[in-house]
Amino acid sequence: MINRNAPVGVFDSGIGGLTVVREIMRQIPNERIVYFGDTARLPYGSKSKETVTRYSRQIVRFLQSQEVKAIVVACNTASAYALEEIERETDIPMIGVVKPGAKAAVEATSNGKVGVIGTEATIGSSIYSRYIKEISPETIVIGKACPLFVPLVEEGLWQDPVTDEIAKRYLTELNDIGIDTLILGCTHYPLIRSTVGRVMGEKVTLVNPAYETARELKELLNTRELENEETAGLGDNRYRFYVSDGAEKFKQFANSIIKYGILSAKIINMEGY
Amino acid sequence: MINRNAPVGVFDSGIGGLTVVREIMRQIPNERIVYFGDTARLPYGSKSKETVTRYSRQIVRFLQSQEVKAIVVACNTASAYALEEIERETDIPMIGVVKPGAKAAVEATSNGKVGVIGTEATIGSSIYSRYIKEISPETIVIGKACPLFVPLVEEGLWQDPVTDEIAKRYLTELNDIGIDTLILGCTHYPLIRSTVGRVMGEKVTLVNPAYETARELKELLNTRELENEETAGLGDNRYRFYVSDGAEKFKQFANSIIKYGILSAKIINMEGY
Repeated sequence: MINRNAPVGVFDSGIGGLTVVREIMRQIPNERIVYFGDTARLPYGSKSKETVTRYSRQIVRFLQSQEVKAIVVACNTASAYALEEIERETDIPMIGVVKPGAKAAVEATSNGKVGVIGTEATIGSSIYSRYIKEISPETIVIGKACPLFVPLVEEGLWQDPVTDEIAKRYLTELNDIGIDTLILGCTHYPLIRSTVGRVMGEKVTLVNPAYETARELKELLNTRELENEETAGLGDNRYRFYVSDGAEKFKQFANSIIKYGILSAKIINMEGY
Repeated sequence: MINRNAPVGVFDSGIGGLTVVREIMRQIPNERIVYFGDTARLPYGSKSKETVTRYSRQIVRFLQSQEVKAIVVACNTASAYALEEIERETDIPMIGVVKPGAKAAVEATSNGKVGVIGTEATIGSSIYSRYIKEISPETIVIGKACPLFVPLVEEGLWQDPVTDEIAKRYLTELNDIGIDTLILGCTHYPLIRSTVGRVMGEKVTLVNPAYETARELKELLNTRELENEETAGLGDNRYRFYVSDGAEKFKQFANSIIKYGILSAKIINMEGY
């Protein structure tokens, strides 16, 4: 029996997953959240399936120790590499960011040509293509890894000629192929959405899986009768943040993304899980 | 009693330390090397002192299990954060890259103004400044963190207008201050030495701690009578490489740096150490 007033667990390799948290806060404000960012081992996007799965499994154990009622894998790499395996081992509902993003892209495309940008791991896994083809086998999916986008975002160059230049190099081939829909397949990318949009042009629809994931979470909680029933305010303890390293730095970055006022972030050593 | 024919242990957060290995191979070709790159947890440069020290301690235990006769901390961040503490706990000789780099910079400067570039961690620790001032208290040391250099090197943009542009942004203030010596305080940076040199101009001497560290290792082995005495060839087993993730990718990158033909790299899970 799951406690419907328990928090939702959300995790990511570090800070990118906060773009998903931001959407959950907006769309389902009556839910508690426990967030974990694996800042001691980030990034995941350049690492192997085995390693990302081992790390994700430890985090799921930690979130279960926090008695969450559902888990959102707010990281494209972990969704691509680890979700299917860990879902089988876990008895609470889990959703990733890939499936909702894939579904939204199929709904958005008119010409059947969809682009996906993400980390080396996400693109190498071809997982967006797999999910898209399950829904719509004739859709053509073109993936492009963009390894420099994460460090550029983390350096704060959200609007910068260097980011423009790198975006042009990465995205030109997608434009040449004539895609009409582009999935922002890494949770950092919504932060450089305007740069990506400018390079791709107005005719290309950008799909933000963070938005779609929050919508799917809302549906899931509703279908399974897991929505929080407390009617009084949820108080200061409503959103709790944990990281494996650098709590102060995380807090600063987090406050620039979610603008909700993160009060504190606690350090957890993952090797114990 | 240390076995003088045992290998030298060298470690880094990932691949940067290979620039140190390359110098050891050149300067002391008669030594065996066991290299460990912590590719499952890289980078270290954005992480905390506690985390980097914990990781480094695990790696030292692994290298001791390989019966190395000395350990080279071929990572500026680990040298800055972890070396002093771990050296006290360990009974085999250890050297880092910071002290040799600091010494060489003091010898190189004429006007007493030395710049240091490195990761956030290395620069934040002020360790180069501390070591330089121990030798030469009147020397002025100016540090500058360059977080994008590592991802740019790993993306292969060793010679590229984007790297030029980022280098100009990072280095202009060091030029304005009028330094005559610049320490490449991260083991990745020798790979973009020509870009850094072009931006700084001919009058600024670039100090590569990798070179100085290999020289210091040679001296140490000689002073302590730990030089390898085998006169026959050391065979295929002379250089052994271990990583915590992505062995194939490591091998490819390694072969682009050391051009010696790395035969194989084995995976080790660090959490067991």
